[in-house]
This record gives sequence, C-alpha cells and structure tokens, in this order.
Amino acid sequence: MAEAAQTLDGWYCLHDFRTINWSAWKLLSSDDRQTAIHEFLGLVEKWNATQDKKEGSHALYTIVGQKADFMMMILRPTMEELNEIETEFNKTMLAEYTIPAHSYVSVVELSNYLPADQDPYQSPEILARLYPTLPKAKHVCFYPMDKRRQGNDNWYMLPMEERRSMMRSHGMIGRRYAGKVKQIITGSVGFDDYEWGVTLFSDEALQFKKLVYEMRFDEVSARYGEFGAFFIGNLLEIDRLHSFLHVN
Amino acid sequence: MAEAAQTLDGWYCLHDFRTINWSAWKLLSSDDRQTAIHEFLGLVEKWNATQDKKEGSHALYTIVGQKADFMMMILRPTMEELNEIETEFNKTMLAEYTIPAHSYVSVVELSNYLPADQDPYQSPEILARLYPTLPKAKHVCFYPMDKRRQGNDNWYMLPMEERRSMMRSHGMIGRRYAGKVKQIITGSVGFDDYEWGVTLFSDEALQFKKLVYEMRFDEVSARYGEFGAFFIGNLLEIDRLHSFLHVN
Amino acid sequence: MAEAAQTLDGWYCLHDFRTINWSAWKLLSSDDRQTAIHEFLGLVEKWNATQDKKEGSHALYTIVGQKADFMMMILRPTMEELNEIETEFNKTMLAEYTIPAHSYVSVVELSNYLPADQDPYQSPEILARLYPTLPKAKHVCFYPMDKRRQGNDNWYMLPMEERRSMMRSHGMIGRRYAGKVKQIITGSVGFDDYEWGVTLFSDEALQFKKLVYEMRFDEVSARYGEFGAFFIGNLLEIDRLHSFLHVN
Amino acid sequence: MAEAAQTLDGWYCLHDFRTINWSAWKLLSSDDRQTAIHEFLGLVEKWNATQDKKEGSHALYTIVGQKADFMMMILRPTMEELNEIETEFNKTMLAEYTIPAHSYVSVVELSNYLPADQDPYQSPEILARLYPTLPKAKHVCFYPMDKRRQGNDNWYMLPMEERRSMMRSHGMIGRRYAGKVKQIITGSVGFDDYEWGVTLFSDEALQFKKLVYEMRFDEVSARYGEFGAFFIGNLLEIDRLHSFLHVN
Amino acid sequence: MAEAAQTLDGWYCLHDFRTINWSAWKLLSSDDRQTAIHEFLGLVEKWNATQDKKEGSHALYTIVGQKADFMMMILRPTMEELNEIETEFNKTMLAEYTIPAHSYVSVVELSNYLPADQDPYQSPEILARLYPTLPKAKHVCFYPMDKRRQGNDNWYMLPMEERRSMMRSHGMIGRRYAGKVKQIITGSVGFDDYEWGVTLFSDEALQFKKLVYEMRFDEVSARYGEFGAFFIGNLLEIDRLHSFLHVN
Repeated sequence: MAEAAQTLDGWYCLHDFRTINWSAWKLLSSDDRQTAIHEFLGLVEKWNATQDKKEGSHALYTIVGQKADFMMMILRPTMEELNEIETEFNKTMLAEYTIPAHSYVSVVELSNYLPADQDPYQSPEILARLYPTLPKAKHVCFYPMDKRRQGNDNWYMLPMEERRSMMRSHGMIGRRYAGKVKQIITGSVGFDDYEWGVTLFSDEALQFKKLVYEMRFDEVSARYGEFGAFFIGNLLEIDRLHSFLHVN
Repeated sequence: MAEAAQTLDGWYCLHDFRTINWSAWKLLSSDDRQTAIHEFLGLVEKWNATQDKKEGSHALYTIVGQKADFMMMILRPTMEELNEIETEFNKTMLAEYTIPAHSYVSVVELSNYLPADQDPYQSPEILARLYPTLPKAKHVCFYPMDKRRQGNDNWYMLPMEERRSMMRSHGMIGRRYAGKVKQIITGSVGFDDYEWGVTLFSDEALQFKKLVYEMRFDEVSARYGEFGAFFIGNLLEIDRLHSFLHVN
Repeated sequence: MAEAAQTLDGWYCLHDFRTINWSAWKLLSSDDRQTAIHEFLGLVEKWNATQDKKEGSHALYTIVGQKADFMMMILRPTMEELNEIETEFNKTMLAEYTIPAHSYVSVVELSNYLPADQDPYQSPEILARLYPTLPKAKHVCFYPMDKRRQGNDNWYMLPMEERRSMMRSHGMIGRRYAGKVKQIITGSVGFDDYEWGVTLFSDEALQFKKLVYEMRFDEVSARYGEFGAFFIGNLLEIDRLHSFLHVN
Repeated sequence: MAEAAQTLDGWYCLHDFRTINWSAWKLLSSDDRQTAIHEFLGLVEKWNATQDKKEGSHALYTIVGQKADFMMMILRPTMEELNEIETEFNKTMLAEYTIPAHSYVSVVELSNYLPADQDPYQSPEILARLYPTLPKAKHVCFYPMDKRRQGNDNWYMLPMEERRSMMRSHGMIGRRYAGKVKQIITGSVGFDDYEWGVTLFSDEALQFKKLVYEMRFDEVSARYGEFGAFFIGNLLEIDRLHSFLHVN
Repeated sequence: MAEAAQTLDGWYCLHDFRTINWSAWKLLSSDDRQTAIHEFLGLVEKWNATQDKKEGSHALYTIVGQKADFMMMILRPTMEELNEIETEFNKTMLAEYTIPAHSYVSVVELSNYLPADQDPYQSPEILARLYPTLPKAKHVCFYPMDKRRQGNDNWYMLPMEERRSMMRSHGMIGRRYAGKVKQIITGSVGFDDYEWGVTLFSDEALQFKKLVYEMRFDEVSARYGEFGAFFIGNLLEIDRLHSFLHVN
C-alpha cells in the first residue's frame, strides 16, 4: 500500500453556479427588481462583514457562455455555514429568478509533499493560504480534477517519493506564473465527485490557458490528470451587478 | 471461476434525496406551510416509533450544494416497506414542493471474508451491525461504488485468498477511524446501478475526506475501486427542520 | 470470423417504466381519479384476456426508488401490438398523470449453445419459455447488459466452443436458483441500446442480489459482462393498485 | 498515414424523431386536431411530389418504446432543403404538440473499397443507391456507429488492404440478407456525433436482430464497431396516421 | 517533461447555440414578432459596425437537426465583451423565445510548431488569421476536440519533434482543401471542456465530411484525436432571417 500524503486543510468551500431566468426577471416591475437586488446586496454585506473579520471569504463572478450566468464562491470554517448560506440565498427573491446550474463542495487544501521537519501551522504564509481572502482579480477559472487510476497510469499505486518528485516539478510551473495567476486548490475527496477543485484568479484570462496548457505536458497532468468541466468568468463587482441585472 | 464471498444481509435501505422548490414553497401561506410541516412530522413520528421498536431506522440530513436539499435514509426489513414509505411521502403536501434528486436502493451488508468456523448470526455485535439504529452524527457522506473489472484490474477474477487479504488491510484503515467515523456498507448488486453504497457518519466532516483519501492509496481502492457521485450533508433534527423550511 | 450462436426467439417484449406526477394527480377530484383508474383497469382486463388466450402476457410492478413509480412489462407476438399498447396507454387519462421514465424493447430469447441434433421447436418446455406467462412473483429485477468487446476481453472474438463452455458454467449458477428465481432473457440487438435484457422474478428480493453477485465471479460476467441500470420492484396486483393510487 | 477510402455521396439525410405531448393534444378540440393533421398531410403531399420527381425521398415510422413516438426520415440534395423542411415542420400546428426527441444529420454514402477501374457514377445500380426511394417496409431500425480507435483496435491505423478485406467479408453478411433487409448507410463525419448512420428496412423486425447480431461476430464489428442508440419502428402510412393521432 | 508548443492567440470567441420555442413565438402577434426581430437586427448592426472597424467579427448560421436552431459565433478582444454580448442578447425580446442549446468559449489560436527564427506578430498573414473577419460561406461546421492521453496514445508525453512532424503532415491535408474549406482553430484549454474548437466554413457541405474523414486516417487524429459533438449549419443572412422567423 502506497503512503498517503498528508494534507493541510483550511476553510470549507462552496462554488455555487446559477443561471438567470431572464424572461421571468423581465416580467417583474422595476421596483420589484430593485427590491430583489437590494435584498441580495444585504446578503453580500453580511458576507463582507464576515470577510472583514477574517472568518471567511467570498467572490462573485459572471460566467461566460451558457453553463451559468454567475458564480458565488464561499469560504467558511464549517459545512453548516456553507449550508446555511446556500439555504439563505435559496430563500431570497433573486433566487426565484435563478436556476441552479452547478455546484462544488470542497475544502481549501495544501498538499504536504514537503519535508516533515517543519510545523506548517506555525507558518503565517501557510495559514494565509489555508484561510485566504479571495482576490479581486478580473477573471476566474474553475475546474475539478482527479488523479488517474487506469492500467499503468495509476497515481495511487506510485511510491510516495515518485509522487513527491512529480508534484515538485508540477509546482515549479505554477510558481513561474506567480504574480500573474493566483491558484487555490481545494480537496473534495468524500465531499464531491472529483478529488480536487482548482480555482484560478488572474487579471488576464489568457494566463489561464497558458498555465493549464503548459501543465498538461507535465507528467502529473499528462499521464495522471483527469479533468472535469471548465468555467471561466469575469469579476462581478457591485457596480457591475446593477448593470448586469438591469433590464429596460 | 472465482469463489464469491458470502455476505450477511440485514435491513433493506433507501436513500431518498430531494430538492426543494423554494419558489413554490414561498407562495404558500404560512399556515399552509405549517400544515405541510406538521404532516411531515407525523410521518417522522411513525418512523421514530418503528425505530423505538427496533423494526427499522432512519436519518434526515440536509445536503450541501445543489445536488439535493435534503436526504431521507430509511432502513426496513422488506422492500415493500421501503416502497410504501416513499409512496406515503410522495403523497404528502411537502412532497408537492420537492423534486426527486436521486435515490439509492440497497441492503445492509457485512462482507464475510472471515473464517467460516463462526456462526455470525449468533454474534450480537454482528446483529447490531445488520440491523443498526442510525447514529445522530453531525455529518453524513454517501457514495456508491463498484469493484473494477477492467483489463488487468479485475477484482472478480482474483482468487478468494487475495481478495480476503486485500479486504483485511482495507478494513484496517477503517478501524483506525473507529470512534471518529461510523461506516454502514449496503450491497446493491441486483438492486441499483452500483454494487455497493457507502454511508459514513461523523461529527467532523473533515474525517470523511481523511478516511476516503487514505483508503484511495490502498490497493483495493487504488486498483479496484470505481466511485459514483458523493453527497455530503448536515444532521437535520426536528428543531432545525423548522428553521430550514421557514420563509418570511 | 467467430460463428454466431443461433438463438430461438419468442414474443416481443416492452418494459415501460412510468413516474407518477403526484401533485397533478392529487388535484383531480376523487371521482376523476376513479374514472382514470377504471379506464386503466379496462386496459388491464383486455391484457388479461389476451393472456388467457395465450396470445401474450404482462406484469405490473411498482418500482422502489426514484427511477420510476411503476413498470408495465408486455409480451406480444408483434412489434405492432407492442406499439399499439403503448399508444393506447398514452391516450388514457392515467397517462396524463405519468411521466415516461424508461423503456426497453426486446424479444424473448433462448441462446442456443446446445447440440444441434434436437429440434427445439418440438420441445414443449422450450415453447413455454419462448411464449411464457409471466409469474406473479412478489418482486421483479430488470437490467440490460452487453457482452464486452474491449482489448483482450472481447466476447465476440472468442471461438464458439469457448463461449459455449463458459455459457454452460454460467447457466449452472442460474440452475442452482431454480425454484427461487425465474429468469427471462430477452434479446435486444437491433432493438435497443444494450444486447440483452434480463428480467428476474422472485418471492424474495435478496435472491436477486445473491444470484447476480454470484454470477459476477463467473468469467462470463467478470470479464465479459457490461451492465446497465438496475430496476427493482414489488408486484402490483389490482387490490394494491387502488391503495397505491389512493390519495386523500 | 493510412489511406482514406474514397466514398460516393448521394442525398443529404435527416432523421427527425419526435415525441407527442398527448396531454396537450387531447386538450384540443376534435376540429383543431383535424386541422393540425390536415396541415401535416399537406406537408407530406409536398414531400410525395418531390419523391415522385425523384428529387428526394422520405419515410414515416412510429417508434416503439419511450425514445420517441414517430420518426421522419428525409432525403434531399442539399443541407438547405433539409433545414427548410425541419423549420417548416417546426412551424406547423402539429409540431406544437410534439417534443424533439432526437435527430441525425448525414449523407447517403457508398464506401468505395472496390477496384478503381470502374466509374461508379456510370452505374445505374449505384445511382439508385445514392439517390434511393425509401421502401415501404413494415419496420425500420436506425442506429449510428463509429469505427473504433482504441489501443490495438484502431481502424484508422490499419492499412487500406486490411480494411478492404474486412469490409468485403462484412458485406457478405449483408448480402445474405438481400430480399429480407434493405440497408441504407449514411456518412456523418463532420455532420453529426457518430461517423455513420445505419437505417435498415424489413418486413420482419426479427431480421434486424439476426443481421446485427451475426455481424457483431464479424471482426469489423467485434473489434472495431462502436454503436450508439438503437431505434425500432413500424411503418406509419396515412391511414394509420389518423388512428395513431385519434383520441376520444 | 515534454515541452509545450508556443501558441499565438488572437480574439476571444463565443459560439452560442439557441433553440427557438416555436410554440411561444407563434403566440405573439405579428407586430410583436416584428418588434423582436427589429431589436435583434439592431444588435446585429452594432456587431457589423464593430466588424467594420476590425474590432471583432461574428457569424450567424441556422443549424440542421434538433441540436439547435441557430448559432451566433462572436469574436472579440476581451472576455468581458463576449460576456456583455451574451448578456445583451439574453435581455432581448427574441431571447425570451429561445432556449440555450450549447455554447463554447475559446480564443483564436495558431499553434506554433514553426521554427523560432521568425517574429510571427510581424506577419500580416498571421495577424489576419488571429484577428479574422469571418467569411460568408454557405455552410459552417463546428466541433470541439482533445488530444488523447490514454495508455500508449498519450499526445502530451510525446517529444516536441514528433508532435511537430505529425502536425506538419496534418496541416498538409488542410492545405489541400485551401479554397474549399476555411478553418479557424480556437484554443479552449482553461476556458471550456475540450482543448480546442474547430470551426470550418465552406460553400459545399460535403467538403467538411471529406476533410474530416481524410484527417481521421492521419495519425494525429487516428491515434490522438478525441472529438465532441458536431454541429452543421447554413448561413443565416438578414434576408433569410426574416423568412426563417416568419410564421403565419
């Protein structure tokens, strides 16, 4: 039996993708739409307050293409809080005009292929990565992934040392994108259908393509990566929320 | 032909996942919602009475993410009783405001890779596992799985002794989580699309991830495990049911 | 090119799975529901008359879990009759309150891996299997299956003698369940998405699991079986039909 | 690089499968239903006129099982005409009571694994096969298929001579069904999700099963065939159309 | 680790497929339909102006078969513009009568397997390919694709030189169709579910089949190509738009 790498786990994470029922939304009076937006902004303010207290974080992005119209990404210390937030959203007036499009449940994770002589929880840098404040980057990219277990390409049958070495080289690629792409890895074994979620943030959408494409030639992805659906989006700040939801 | 392991079988089991049609639910008057909740609680009381008589068991959990809003897990001595319970639920007023999201039909199973010189049905411990009262753990994790039959990774072509030895080592991992995670295995060959259902209960959601991830490096999972969708949820006790279903 | 086994073919077969739209059904007046049930029972009486004349057979079962609420299994000498029966059902009042959930088109088939020196159509036993009256067993199990054609596990590239020998040993398992499980194999090559449908009848649901699980270790299934969705149900006799469809 | 076989291409082909919304259809007055049927028959008459002029062909079949209620198969010289016919149907009153169930876009194709010393377009027999008038057989069978490209079973990596020899033996099987089954192969590379569509016509449905099953043991299918969904139907002549669509 | 080929990237690209809800569209008054068409034509005029300024491009095609009724293909310099265009369309009156059918997000890409001693951005020909004005060809063909990573057929594990050589031979086939088929490759790694989108334009639909079929025998496709759904369509010019959307 191969040895499992230890992981460090931070906040639980919910990606919640929604499609807007534009036809129904347009049937509302302008006042009713304002009421719905106002109520939703009240939720966002509560989330902002939580974020200010460093007790969680969140991000709002519109999604390009028909997979969804927007995404809410929510980080919280417990599964119960994630569940409450989605239920609270489901009960809003805005939710009546949205259709669930996709969701993903995971937990912020640092894979610990590093030497064991450090206590990672003493490292402020590591704590900042486990309990991050999500950046206000212009673009987001989300996709889930598995490590392959197929014939001769079985990640989980490899010795720890080999996995460690491959992950190190894999990490090198990511590091070359430092300053251009911020990457948040969330583990979802036991929580959702893939083993990991990857959320990338960048001010230039093309960097996502460059990074993911370059990594695909790395053995970890080339031989052992299985990828789910990709979502790409644009930052939805409050100002843009008004124009996004505005109809004549 | 490889020899099939004998299994011990207990209560039949239905996992029933539902999504709430919140928009329609909100259109009801507060009184009508109370009527619907009251009727549902009447069902739950009947289930409690059955459980008190040790003639079955059940559990209610809300589900995190869009896969479902809540899950009812029901154990009963016969398929007819499972069928009657789901039909009775389908006729309730609450059911009119839910959408079927997923279900799984199986039977509590203990795989008998143990020496044959014991009569397992004489063991109170084994009887308690075949006819369990489901725990009130804070979190639940459910997923179905198959043993792989693919090229050189064909579980069903392995000799009994090899399977027994792998299952023993697999069981060791589970045992290290004793006290942290309670595991109920249900067999579904001939009943549903996968061969087994796995239902885990824990007071700490992260333990599911640790357990399933650690097991994935074990040969039984690494080479022979095929996994379906994962559902993760939070205990839905009667008190929380009221706030969960409450809308202004 | 491997030689195809000859098959014996009997009645055409339609499995028709339906889900009930309970919310709409409840909106009907009690009288209207009675009218709908009465009309459906008229259909069933016609089917009974056909069965009494040995010109076909049928079975009604409720299905456990959300895959469907009930199944009609219909055997008839021609595809036209199957088509007429489904269209006639589709035009009933009851059908307005059901949603198609799944269907399967096939023909009762005996695979003829036996020596060629017998004329099977002279055998009353074989005729009874090709044109069966479906039993009133308490439980039904239905699933479709393929023989695998993948890499080294390619059933259709095996010599006839090897297939014959494997099928013989496979049949032995089935025979051990004689009296416990009645098995109807229907061929669906050219008619539906899998190559065969398997319909099992038993008074004890657990026997389905035992039989299918034991067979899975047999090389025919272990190396060459590909299985579709499994449906499990309970006999729906006319008495129970009334209570099944009764709502307050 | 393996050499591609030349193909001969005839009329473009649309298979258009529809499900009837019986509940809505029944709500119409008898007069309105007659109007809708009358309008549809007007379309069919136009198609008949085109067929009489040898400028296309069409066939109407009801489909057995829930995959669809009926199929329109349309052959025309251009993609534009296919598109116009489907749009014209979509605008009819009957179409309001149907739900699109499946469609397939292809072009009648003869694969040219024959010696190159003949000009196929001089052959009346070949022209009749490229621009066929669809037969009025009692039954139809449609399925799409690919040639496999997987590991050692990669059709497109085989030398031309080997493919030619396998296709010849494959064609032999088809020829043995001459008079019993008429086969129309349509190519769909670049047009739809599989590489070919196969449409079989016969007065005896069982012949489809015999033919497809026998072919499955032929190396071309056994090692290199990947099959999509199968549809089986009964001829829908104008007389039967009235009774098919008649409701009380 | 294999070296990733450099790519040149041009405009971002959205393929947006829509199905028309004909029943609802027909319920509108003729005036209301004219209003909806007029509003949509206003959008198209804005797109035309952008195209005239060489700040983007677009194409409109009807789609044959039930996958969609029409497609809008939009090229723009930023993801934000694509997002705004789809949102603007979603808010139109016409959009109320369409159902999202499929979409694809990508970026115009030239794979750079050429010698590195040229600055591609100095080449007017290359700039014209990165920032193209879409042709008014009679037909379009769209499909997404991956390079395979499976067992011995793993594109991403091949040395650069081998990939370069195979791509060169692959390009030769495309070049033989010069003047008949115009091909626009868009990269979607990190943006959508496949790695590339391929959009072909031609005045003769059969050329798509010939080109894609011939390429399938080329090792790049035969061993390393994985293809998604294919869409085939006919040019939708403004004149035809009126007749396409006209109902009595």
